[in-house]
Amino acid sequence: MITEMAILQVRQKQTGSFEEAFSRAQQLLKQRKGYLGHELHKGIEYPDRYLLIIRWETLEDHTEGFRGSPQYQQWKAMLHHFYEPFPEVVHFNKIY
Amino acid sequence: MITEMAILQVRQKQTGSFEEAFSRAQQLLKQRKGYLGHELHKGIEYPDRYLLIIRWETLEDHTEGFRGSPQYQQWKAMLHHFYEPFPEVVHFNKIY
Repeated sequence: MITEMAILQVRQKQTGSFEEAFSRAQQLLKQRKGYLGHELHKGIEYPDRYLLIIRWETLEDHTEGFRGSPQYQQWKAMLHHFYEPFPEVVHFNKIY
Repeated sequence: MITEMAILQVRQKQTGSFEEAFSRAQQLLKQRKGYLGHELHKGIEYPDRYLLIIRWETLEDHTEGFRGSPQYQQWKAMLHHFYEPFPEVVHFNKIY
């Protein structure tokens, strides 16, 4: 299992629309091979900042499988315009 | 429940010592009121970078309870010297 993580900085005053779009977009993840689960968290100190965590069986399930899929094209269209700046997405292995 | 999150940038060539110190320090968390669980993840793209997630019942269980405790003094002494720069620690509420 690997963990994909991104800090999403959402444009001012668009957090409500982002959360609504995310509630629909998250269904796209569940259709993909290797998807194990996800969480979206909203910042307490910075309410425009979100923590996105997605768990995949392998790194390639995200970087090749999901990003190369038709679902990713829909994900992009539904969500990417909310981010400013565009987030860095990184991956981790759980050790504890 | 709230989620404490920090990206820990560990000094070059000290990742082995950091992981060993963390394996002992994590026991300190479990003694504190409001502690619900934690995870430490190691970066795939950046092997000196770690993702720390700690779940608490309330924000104050972390910011007042843990940070005001004798266990935090031990935690600091065991771990803080590994970080460069010192991490920003932020909190989140889970929405999905």
